[in-house]
Amino acid sequence: MTGKALALTQGDPAGIGPEIALRAWLRRREAALPPFALVGSGAFMQGLAARLSLDVPVEVATPQDAASRFDRALPVIETGHEVEAEPGVPSPRWAAGIIAAIDLAVRLTRDGACTAVVTNPIAKHVLYEAGFAHPGHTEYLAALAARPGTPAPHPVMMLWSEDLAVVPVTVHIPLAAVPAALTTELIVETGRIVARDLSARFGIARPRLAIAGLNPHAGEKGALGSEDEAIIAPAIATLRAEGLEAGGPYPADTMFHARARRGYDAALCMYHDQALIPIKALAFDEAVNVTLGLPFIRTSPDHGTAFDIAGKGVAREDSLCAALRLAGRLAAASR
Amino acid sequence: MTGKALALTQGDPAGIGPEIALRAWLRRREAALPPFALVGSGAFMQGLAARLSLDVPVEVATPQDAASRFDRALPVIETGHEVEAEPGVPSPRWAAGIIAAIDLAVRLTRDGACTAVVTNPIAKHVLYEAGFAHPGHTEYLAALAARPGTPAPHPVMMLWSEDLAVVPVTVHIPLAAVPAALTTELIVETGRIVARDLSARFGIARPRLAIAGLNPHAGEKGALGSEDEAIIAPAIATLRAEGLEAGGPYPADTMFHARARRGYDAALCMYHDQALIPIKALAFDEAVNVTLGLPFIRTSPDHGTAFDIAGKGVAREDSLCAALRLAGRLAAASR
Repeated sequence: MTGKALALTQGDPAGIGPEIALRAWLRRREAALPPFALVGSGAFMQGLAARLSLDVPVEVATPQDAASRFDRALPVIETGHEVEAEPGVPSPRWAAGIIAAIDLAVRLTRDGACTAVVTNPIAKHVLYEAGFAHPGHTEYLAALAARPGTPAPHPVMMLWSEDLAVVPVTVHIPLAAVPAALTTELIVETGRIVARDLSARFGIARPRLAIAGLNPHAGEKGALGSEDEAIIAPAIATLRAEGLEAGGPYPADTMFHARARRGYDAALCMYHDQALIPIKALAFDEAVNVTLGLPFIRTSPDHGTAFDIAGKGVAREDSLCAALRLAGRLAAASR
Repeated sequence: MTGKALALTQGDPAGIGPEIALRAWLRRREAALPPFALVGSGAFMQGLAARLSLDVPVEVATPQDAASRFDRALPVIETGHEVEAEPGVPSPRWAAGIIAAIDLAVRLTRDGACTAVVTNPIAKHVLYEAGFAHPGHTEYLAALAARPGTPAPHPVMMLWSEDLAVVPVTVHIPLAAVPAALTTELIVETGRIVARDLSARFGIARPRLAIAGLNPHAGEKGALGSEDEAIIAPAIATLRAEGLEAGGPYPADTMFHARARRGYDAALCMYHDQALIPIKALAFDEAVNVTLGLPFIRTSPDHGTAFDIAGKGVAREDSLCAALRLAGRLAAASR
C-alpha cells in the first residue's frame, strides 16, 4: 500500500454527503474501505457527528498523515471554509466551500498527495445561485483537468457494479433529442475512452465493449428505425478497425441478463435510461459512478444530495462505500 | 380443477415451438404444469419426438378428453393440416396450418372447451408470404376476438414474471417515433385495461399501477423534456379520478430495484425497451408474454421461432413452462 489516502469531498453540507461519510468511516473495517480523508471542515464534521450521535472522532490531517490517522479517526483536510449548514436546508452561503473542497481534492490527487478523488453529492441549483457556471459536477472536474490553453477532456460517465458496467453515450437530454444527438463520432470517441480507461485503470488487458442499438430489436434491419444501421454500426466498425473488441448493435432488451453480461466488460448505451435502468434494477445500492477520460481517478456514489432525508439518520452509505472501495481498487490497479 | 386443458398452438413447425412443447410435456410433473393439449398435427409431433429422441407418446385427443390423457401422453387436438417441416427451414407451405391452429385454439377457448390459449412462436414474414394480412400474432388474436360489426378490442402486451410485470404503452416503433405516438388517451386506455385484467384475471382486488416517465429523471420538471408533465401526468390524474391506484410519472431508472418493485403490481412503460430491459435483466428465462384486453386468456413464451437453433436440442422450454403455468393460474383465478 502507498500509505496515501483517497480525497473525499464534503459535498453539499446540507445534503446527506457528510452524514454518509461519517457512517462509512464507522464501517471502515467491516466494509474493507481504503483510507480516505474528508476534504472540508473538521469543525462541521465534528458537530454533525455529535448532532447525529455518531461516535466518530475527527482529526485535522495533512495529506501526508491522513492515511495513518484513518484507523482511529476520520481525517479531515481543511479547506479553510467554515460551515454551519442545517441538514436539509441548502444555501448559496456554503457554495464557495463546496467548490473549494472539489478544487483541493483534485489538486491533491493531481499532485500525487492523494490517490483518487471521491465526490459527495452537490446540488447544481445551489451553486448556480452563487455564480457557478458549469453544467454539472463532472464538467467542472473536466474543466479543472484542462491544461492551460487546451480544451477540457471529454469526461465519460460510467455506472459500475460488480455485475455490470454501463456507459450512457448521451446523458441528460430529453428522449426526443436522443436520435439527433447520436453521432458515429460521439459513439467512437466514447468507445475509445472507455476501452482506454478499462485497460489503464481497471487492469483489463483486452476490454470487450457491447454496444446497444437505439431502437427495439436494434431496429430489425431498418424496419424499426434507421439509426442502428446508419449511425451505430459504422461506429462499431471504426472501433474494430482500430483493434478494439466492440460488438453490436445489440437489441438492448437482451443485453443485460446474467448470461449476456458475461460476454462484455462494459455496455455502451445510447441514452440515459437504457444504461441506468438495468444497472439500478440489478445493483441499486451498490452502483458507483466513475468518470472516465480524466487525468485522475474519480468515483462518486450513485445518488444525489437527498436534502429531504438529510440529518434524519436514514441515508444509506452503501453506494459511498462502494465508490470508496472502487476508487481504492482503481488507484492500486493504475500504479 | 375443471378437467379441461389449456390449448397450446403448434406455432411455426420449423421453429422451436413444437420442440419445446415436447420438452415441456416431459417436465410436466417436476414443473407442475397444468394439463395442456397441443393444437396442430399428431403425426408431425410424433415424428419430431422420434427425430429428437424424446420419449414423448403422442395421442390424438378431443377437447373433452385431452386433460385426462395428459399424464400419460401429449394430447394433440388435430387441425387437419398435415406438416412435414424441416427444423430451421420455414416455408409458406405450412402457413395455413399455423393459422388454423390459432383459430381452433381460440374457438375452443371461447366455447369453454379449453381454459386458455397459449401460443407458440410464429414468424410473421412466413405468413405474409402466404397472404396473412395482420401486423402480428397479437393483432390477429384481437381480430378473432372482435364481434361481427364491432371494432377489434385493444390488445395490451404485458411481460410478466414473479418479480415484475411491465406493460409497454408503445411497442414496435422506432425510438424517434415514441414521443409523437404517446398520447394521454393511449396511456389512460392502456392503464384501464391493465387495471381491469389485473383484477379480473390475476385476482388482485386493488391493482397498483406505477407509471414511468419518458425522459431522464421523469423530465426534472420540464428541464429534460416536456412529455412527463404535458402528457403522462394528466393520464395519471385521469386514472386516479376514475378510482384507480396509479402513481407517477416516476424516473424509470429507479422504478425497478427490489424495494421499488414491492410498491406496484404492474409498471406502465412508455416504450419497448423501457419495459423489456428491466424484466429481461431480472427474469430472462422466466418472463411470459400475457395479452390483456382480450375476451379470453392468452399467454406465450417470451421469445421467437429461433429458426437458427430449431431441431438442435438446445432450445430452452423454461419460458413456455412459465407461460403454461401462468395460463393455468389465470384460468383458475378467472373462474
